[in-house]
Amino acid sequence: MDLKLGTLSGPDSNTKDVFDLVIAGGGPAALSAALYAARYGINHVVLESYQPGGQAALTALIENYPGVPSIQGSDLTALMRGQAEEAGSLFRASSVSNATRENDLIMIGTDSGELTTRTLIIATGAAPKKLGVPGEDEYYGRGVSYCATCDAPFFKDRKVLVVGGGDSAVKEALHLTEFASSVTIVHRRDRLRAEPLLVKKLLSCGKCSVLWKSQLREISGGDFVETVLIETPEGEVELPTDGVFLYVGRDPATAPFRDLIDLNDDGTVITSNIVHTSSPDIFAAGDVTDNALRQVVTAVSDGARAASEVFELLQASEI
Amino acid sequence: MDLKLGTLSGPDSNTKDVFDLVIAGGGPAALSAALYAARYGINHVVLESYQPGGQAALTALIENYPGVPSIQGSDLTALMRGQAEEAGSLFRASSVSNATRENDLIMIGTDSGELTTRTLIIATGAAPKKLGVPGEDEYYGRGVSYCATCDAPFFKDRKVLVVGGGDSAVKEALHLTEFASSVTIVHRRDRLRAEPLLVKKLLSCGKCSVLWKSQLREISGGDFVETVLIETPEGEVELPTDGVFLYVGRDPATAPFRDLIDLNDDGTVITSNIVHTSSPDIFAAGDVTDNALRQVVTAVSDGARAASEVFELLQASEI
Repeated sequence: MDLKLGTLSGPDSNTKDVFDLVIAGGGPAALSAALYAARYGINHVVLESYQPGGQAALTALIENYPGVPSIQGSDLTALMRGQAEEAGSLFRASSVSNATRENDLIMIGTDSGELTTRTLIIATGAAPKKLGVPGEDEYYGRGVSYCATCDAPFFKDRKVLVVGGGDSAVKEALHLTEFASSVTIVHRRDRLRAEPLLVKKLLSCGKCSVLWKSQLREISGGDFVETVLIETPEGEVELPTDGVFLYVGRDPATAPFRDLIDLNDDGTVITSNIVHTSSPDIFAAGDVTDNALRQVVTAVSDGARAASEVFELLQASEI
Repeated sequence: MDLKLGTLSGPDSNTKDVFDLVIAGGGPAALSAALYAARYGINHVVLESYQPGGQAALTALIENYPGVPSIQGSDLTALMRGQAEEAGSLFRASSVSNATRENDLIMIGTDSGELTTRTLIIATGAAPKKLGVPGEDEYYGRGVSYCATCDAPFFKDRKVLVVGGGDSAVKEALHLTEFASSVTIVHRRDRLRAEPLLVKKLLSCGKCSVLWKSQLREISGGDFVETVLIETPEGEVELPTDGVFLYVGRDPATAPFRDLIDLNDDGTVITSNIVHTSSPDIFAAGDVTDNALRQVVTAVSDGARAASEVFELLQASEI
């Protein structure tokens, strides 16, 4: 054989002390990076934390992933994971606690021991942000939720409130209409930032209403959420509500990588040409980056591009 | 409704004289751009030429599109097209002959009339390149092919030659092994550039052989291809052959857009941040660009990103 592939070796050689690549994350970006890494023959491991599939797996119905007309988020990510495993990817359920550099190598600390790797793809995604209002923590799991996909069925024939105006807020509000008796959207601006098609669907929904230029101030109740206090342009109003769903941004999971690469103020990875970070042997993919469009379709592409960059880097290094 | 979407209007308003967006091309990049444009509510049309699905539709089996473990290329692009149509995209089978600028508008000349548009996404892909050897044109369709996916079944139990060393060459060579009695790869270098997993598969295939550092010089025969002349490090050899499959690069379909945007020497679109061209109202996506990785997964992402950029541009312009 005349391959001259440098440090590259088959995906079975995971018993080596030093990985050629560690992929941190378990969502579409990480799973696509894994699929491509496996097909490139890169000796790698995926640290997928404890939420396989990432945020995508929590999305009810995904209708804008080209080639897959309509699918549950968790079904789509399960397909992606199986595909990567089939190609030879190795998965570990462990979360990254810290990452440091030692000479040319990157040391990854996890809750199940330390790993050493030549290159790293950060695809750890972003978790939902808290609003920080009284009652939010107290009623979490007792009416307060960040995931309609997970909790909507609990609110059959109940009144729910959705806070936010982006794609997630509108999508999840639409999902809630399948269960709830009424869905009220609270949004601080006077227009929704979500896709017009979704907005149109929402505004034509009989059981939906929007409180424009308004903010949720307090959540209260007994054992479960009963009332919310909302500041509207017409003053404060108290609404009887059974559930509160919050979509006010995300927190990128980049804390362990702070010392290795440059981050934006909001914690996202500063990228150039989509997947490059400030460090030449570290790449980023998906929601964890500062790329504008954050979709499954962009995440999988980022993952593939990152794996391809790693492949070229390892070939060039010829260690 | 409080949407303030500027020039944006529903996909049904295609009777307007000026489109907000024209998408040139019919492959995964164009189809994904169409799906996203439709969901964004952008008034657009897809000029898909006469080869719906683009090069991807000619690919036998696609196994590295995340979430779709294994599918015929034409089935995958048909799914994408149906999804875009379902979302409201309008398709026209016509090819672009020229494109010029008139004030803030872009005039697109096609074989079925002229169109005017505010923005343009170029996703016209790239056609296979010719090798330019004697017999290549003469025997095209009579033994010479650029597409094993289309023609492999005609070579059942026959001897075939594959020229090239990249992903396409190796993939198509593997596809040919399902039909041909022997597959000989002719490659000018001493290593294959294709994915190691594919290379491994090829090199372990019983009926395959590789002529390293070699070049095809001539194709000859009677009614059909019978013999090829190959220059090897050991001198010229004549091989009895029934079919010749050529994978020696691609020609990007950018000729009509030469006056509007900057191109590289090889004809690909010069891009920055993946989808931006030298013109702020023109975007590029997929194989037509100079982006390194050219896969279905990157093409669909490019298309989505381009549509998103158009959406933001139209919103910002508030015409």
